[in-house]
Amino acid sequence: MRKMTRAGFIPALAGALMAAGAVQAQDNDMAFYLDMFEPLPALPPIPADNSLTPEKIELGKMLFFEPRISSSGVISCATCHNPALGWADRIPRAVGHLGQEGSRNTPTVLNAGFLDAQFWDGREATLEGQALGPIAADIEMAMDLDEAVARLQEFETYRAHFAEAFPDDPDPINADNVAQAIASFERTLNTPNSPFDRYLRGDVNAMTEDQVAGMRLFVDVGCVACHNGPALSDSNFHVFDAPGSEDDGRFVVTGDDFDRGAFRTPTLRNVAVTYPYFNNGSVESLHEAVFMMGDQMTGYDFSDDELDQVVAFLHALTGEMPAVMPPALP
Amino acid sequence: MRKMTRAGFIPALAGALMAAGAVQAQDNDMAFYLDMFEPLPALPPIPADNSLTPEKIELGKMLFFEPRISSSGVISCATCHNPALGWADRIPRAVGHLGQEGSRNTPTVLNAGFLDAQFWDGREATLEGQALGPIAADIEMAMDLDEAVARLQEFETYRAHFAEAFPDDPDPINADNVAQAIASFERTLNTPNSPFDRYLRGDVNAMTEDQVAGMRLFVDVGCVACHNGPALSDSNFHVFDAPGSEDDGRFVVTGDDFDRGAFRTPTLRNVAVTYPYFNNGSVESLHEAVFMMGDQMTGYDFSDDELDQVVAFLHALTGEMPAVMPPALP
Repeated sequence: MRKMTRAGFIPALAGALMAAGAVQAQDNDMAFYLDMFEPLPALPPIPADNSLTPEKIELGKMLFFEPRISSSGVISCATCHNPALGWADRIPRAVGHLGQEGSRNTPTVLNAGFLDAQFWDGREATLEGQALGPIAADIEMAMDLDEAVARLQEFETYRAHFAEAFPDDPDPINADNVAQAIASFERTLNTPNSPFDRYLRGDVNAMTEDQVAGMRLFVDVGCVACHNGPALSDSNFHVFDAPGSEDDGRFVVTGDDFDRGAFRTPTLRNVAVTYPYFNNGSVESLHEAVFMMGDQMTGYDFSDDELDQVVAFLHALTGEMPAVMPPALP
Repeated sequence: MRKMTRAGFIPALAGALMAAGAVQAQDNDMAFYLDMFEPLPALPPIPADNSLTPEKIELGKMLFFEPRISSSGVISCATCHNPALGWADRIPRAVGHLGQEGSRNTPTVLNAGFLDAQFWDGREATLEGQALGPIAADIEMAMDLDEAVARLQEFETYRAHFAEAFPDDPDPINADNVAQAIASFERTLNTPNSPFDRYLRGDVNAMTEDQVAGMRLFVDVGCVACHNGPALSDSNFHVFDAPGSEDDGRFVVTGDDFDRGAFRTPTLRNVAVTYPYFNNGSVESLHEAVFMMGDQMTGYDFSDDELDQVVAFLHALTGEMPAVMPPALP
């Protein structure tokens, strides 16, 4: 059942896609889907000013797991971006320094390199820009960045790793290079070869009938208007009212009323293992989350059977998890 | 330089060993060392009432990394027993729920199955007895055990894993089985094939000359009186004054004045990667720790050269770290 869409929430693209999808999807035309989606590439785009090297990746892995760059000494990036929990934390809102609870749900790091906006409000565009935020945030790792750098400088092992990762830098242990190394490691945390990827590459048996039907609905209803591209995110901002949310979202960054309550479209890759959902983690059920999104964002109320199919499709977006052994820290 | 030993600190065995060692060690008689030490076996003793099975080990690994059995939802066994940090935390005293700091240093889980007393005060004899303590402790994971069990019961995946691990138990998700599974996983966290182990097995080149000299000193001076056996710990209790410690130690358990300020002999395996040292983590330098132990426990003041040799020997006790990939939790 299609209802009126809330004005301004859906880009003009959506209508065109919905109309086109309703016709072409029935032809199971792979080219049509490949126009909106993309099998996950092996790596996201690498910025010109931070070449991806094994040395940076290795250092970044160490720093990602390093709790001694938090003021308590026990919180690392991996605490909230926990490899055991889909590189997120599976609680509604992040819990950090001294057990303080933040106001937002922890986004997964998986495939984050494919997004052009970081954080729920997009206040940083790049992984490099994002990496230092949680280290310094009072309610996360609560660490003065100068002190973090000073702690790292105490370790011969880190001095050697920074020198190898940044050979042209005479004084390589600094916050910028911490960010570059962590971002480099994060660019390797991708989840290729999901059933969806294999399907897009031509293995038509990689997804079940329900999953294919769910993909068609996903396109036809217009979810794809925002959830498109390799990460199934447009990296853009859209207003959505999550239950109980009093968060101004993107407005906090821009001060533009148009952005009040708008949040970056999250990637849907691995969405089945990165619950709970929405900016405040207020919904744990994927069925419920899909229903609410359909209702608010496209004006479409999914039936129970349709919900089952879309949720089946979303499960097909779970890829191969990166095999990362925690490093031996100095 | 040998001084008077503090009365009562050293078992009578020590004197005999020191005398014997001074003579026999110079003969490099491997049988002599094998009488006091032992190459690390592949597994510690397995208790009759908790057979070691792959199903229990797998479940125990999941539970070990599971933060949702803490009241905050972000602290797991692996937070303080961090695989990246020698399965300990490398801070002086454990930091747990809401950032509260405990009074004791986190012991490593590595090779803990070879110890006959758990915790610094030995208040539990077995890994099964130990496992639930930190989950329930107010300053650690701060979780009501019944609630922890209830949370696990919500997950189909855990229901399946508990049923597989405890097939004869009609109602397998309970605190006792949580303890059995975690203990089973912990019994696999051993560090074989250190240079010391290879040396004891007959590869006389596995340790450097300094390390062999350090081993001789370790025996001759009498460190081996308490640090013996496969884990280099007698699992017994000895009074030691760590700088700044006001901890009654074993006395808290027994109420016996003889035990005031006594602590379980820690394993020395991997001691080079499990700093800082002593019950309150008050000493970060291994040289300093060895000097203080020699002084207080054997009445012997190591020279700088001797300290270098003993510390070199202790580095030979670093074995192969267990290769544990964080599990995918439900």
